[in-house]
Amino acid sequence: MTLTTDFGLSDHYVGVMKGVIAGIAPDVGVIDITHDVPAFNVPEGAFAIAQAYRWFPTGTTHVVVVDPGVGSSRRAVAARAGGHLFVAPDNGVLSFVLERDPEFEMRAIDARHGLAEISRTFHGRDLFAPAAARLMAGLRFDHVGPRVREPLMLHSMEPTARRGRVLHVDRFGNLVTNFRAGQLGSREGLQVGAGTVFAMAESYAEAPVGAPFLIEGSSGYLEVSINRASAAQLLGVRAGTEITICWFGSGKPREP
Amino acid sequence: MTLTTDFGLSDHYVGVMKGVIAGIAPDVGVIDITHDVPAFNVPEGAFAIAQAYRWFPTGTTHVVVVDPGVGSSRRAVAARAGGHLFVAPDNGVLSFVLERDPEFEMRAIDARHGLAEISRTFHGRDLFAPAAARLMAGLRFDHVGPRVREPLMLHSMEPTARRGRVLHVDRFGNLVTNFRAGQLGSREGLQVGAGTVFAMAESYAEAPVGAPFLIEGSSGYLEVSINRASAAQLLGVRAGTEITICWFGSGKPREP
Amino acid sequence: MTLTTDFGLSDHYVGVMKGVIAGIAPDVGVIDITHDVPAFNVPEGAFAIAQAYRWFPTGTTHVVVVDPGVGSSRRAVAARAGGHLFVAPDNGVLSFVLERDPEFEMRAIDARHGLAEISRTFHGRDLFAPAAARLMAGLRFDHVGPRVREPLMLHSMEPTARRGRVLHVDRFGNLVTNFRAGQLGSREGLQVGAGTVFAMAESYAEAPVGAPFLIEGSSGYLEVSINRASAAQLLGVRAGTEITICWFGSGKPREP
Repeated sequence: MTLTTDFGLSDHYVGVMKGVIAGIAPDVGVIDITHDVPAFNVPEGAFAIAQAYRWFPTGTTHVVVVDPGVGSSRRAVAARAGGHLFVAPDNGVLSFVLERDPEFEMRAIDARHGLAEISRTFHGRDLFAPAAARLMAGLRFDHVGPRVREPLMLHSMEPTARRGRVLHVDRFGNLVTNFRAGQLGSREGLQVGAGTVFAMAESYAEAPVGAPFLIEGSSGYLEVSINRASAAQLLGVRAGTEITICWFGSGKPREP
Repeated sequence: MTLTTDFGLSDHYVGVMKGVIAGIAPDVGVIDITHDVPAFNVPEGAFAIAQAYRWFPTGTTHVVVVDPGVGSSRRAVAARAGGHLFVAPDNGVLSFVLERDPEFEMRAIDARHGLAEISRTFHGRDLFAPAAARLMAGLRFDHVGPRVREPLMLHSMEPTARRGRVLHVDRFGNLVTNFRAGQLGSREGLQVGAGTVFAMAESYAEAPVGAPFLIEGSSGYLEVSINRASAAQLLGVRAGTEITICWFGSGKPREP
Repeated sequence: MTLTTDFGLSDHYVGVMKGVIAGIAPDVGVIDITHDVPAFNVPEGAFAIAQAYRWFPTGTTHVVVVDPGVGSSRRAVAARAGGHLFVAPDNGVLSFVLERDPEFEMRAIDARHGLAEISRTFHGRDLFAPAAARLMAGLRFDHVGPRVREPLMLHSMEPTARRGRVLHVDRFGNLVTNFRAGQLGSREGLQVGAGTVFAMAESYAEAPVGAPFLIEGSSGYLEVSINRASAAQLLGVRAGTEITICWFGSGKPREP
């Protein structure tokens, strides 16, 4: 089982979720993907789980709790997609996972799969963790609750024509874009924040120190990086910043 | 087994404790509650473990190391309370756990349950981790060492008459107070830092954005929160800040 | 198995490494030493693993990924030293481990022990994690790849004559030096940043509040500490700062 939340590690919240899981499914290993999704930031949570889940064995259950609507009428759901199981609020945090598997199946989680008492403020502990633990302990997916046909979806991760965005800024200041390498023609680059980037590198180490470059990142997306420095800082960019394909020679975006 | 410390995660200290545990009780799962208790802050450590332990299966052993007196004559103790085991320095960090179970039993940890060599600076590694691991591996609680009848206790978590305090500020800026919902009359609210708060909400999501409100938190205590913002920042409050019940109409605390 | 990296915990990178390990060696427990090695800082990574590995059971496999040269021609290696196994880039990050065991054996990791596709930017996921997992799952060390006779080594951790350095500043602001207690004569102290420190304490708690002192730390090295405050902040020192043995009376370093 994996956990992805915006709870941070300075409170006891994540530990308590693991305590609840240990009480229901004591032999299940729990792996943290990250708990430092920026608070309430559903698209960042959606990015993290979409990047990570594929690297786990098929059949893994992934709990994702970035949940600004906790206690409201937003549904709690479980989904089966790409050979994995997911437990999360129905607020779009699973969008980028579902978008990859049109055959996904989603069910609303019946409250009886949660703890006996469900608070209005901490469904990670009271509903998502226990439901996921019960799935690991033998609860059948089709017994989770009624089918959900139209989950709430975020705007697609995919770029529109020649406009994309920064999906994520990682610890090293690398900018993960939503372009893939094949989407840039020769003599094309990206206009990102304060600069334009054309140079393409095959590894961080081969790039000259100090100048930003494009590289096919471990995510499969084009990333804007600087060898041993932060591209985010140099270019003044954060997650969500819009980027545009631009044309070498003009320095301006070519008309689509 | 769980761990709660003020060691942070940037040093190797927590990893080393787990290494020592793995050497003595290799099959025991270790769950982190938090390692970001503010350095040397015994009351914050006491709060974290008191909030968290109940969500773990009965019989869990909890190691709590917030230990400014390491190497001094403060005792190392093991306690049995509420169906759980605890291993910690006798400096009050278990107060809020013991306060809930008047039947608790405490024993000083005999040095022979530690590593062969016990440093003066890192009892987490040399004494607490090995003693806890031995408890998991079969050491009987009454063989831990001599009974301790009067553990060092912090001031109670409970409020005095109409004065309470902020027990903890969490990652989202929610203020966990030591009042329970039933302790506020109608037309009463809390004077907290720069403001007074009367509005009561049942979930974060239903509250208007920007205005602080009271909510029964996942801890069972009243919390002061703001929908998608930090109440701590807005009200200028930190853990330990005193708060007072106040009366709607006067805006001033009513005499007790 | 343990992990030590500079990946931080805010991205999905560490979680993904664990996912890959779970796919190859599902029953192996993975313990984090730290993921907060400062980015690209090979000496700090070397310090962390050298301090930590000895506290794990013999036969543990330690994965260390601080890897500014990922994707370049630097080798990926596995080493057997001190009864433990290590998997890391050949960039010096294992120096302080190897320096302690002149009998160490090192092998370059054959790419076939990695994932089917190996990216140029994330060998933690694509090569180091799978190779370590295969070692745990039965791969024989001498089948890892060809012998490496001359690993890249950092400057020794040991001080030169009377000059040493700060190896690490921990969360509490303690300065871990590379001097051992026996290396200071009576009437000798350390010149560290803005001050000289002569007072020797046996525990943090016995030292007067506010004044820096020397203490034999849990690492076996002399540390410069202040009771409940940060020596690093007071003395204006960071990892790498040079320190000198000085002589009580002159306040100046004595000639060697």
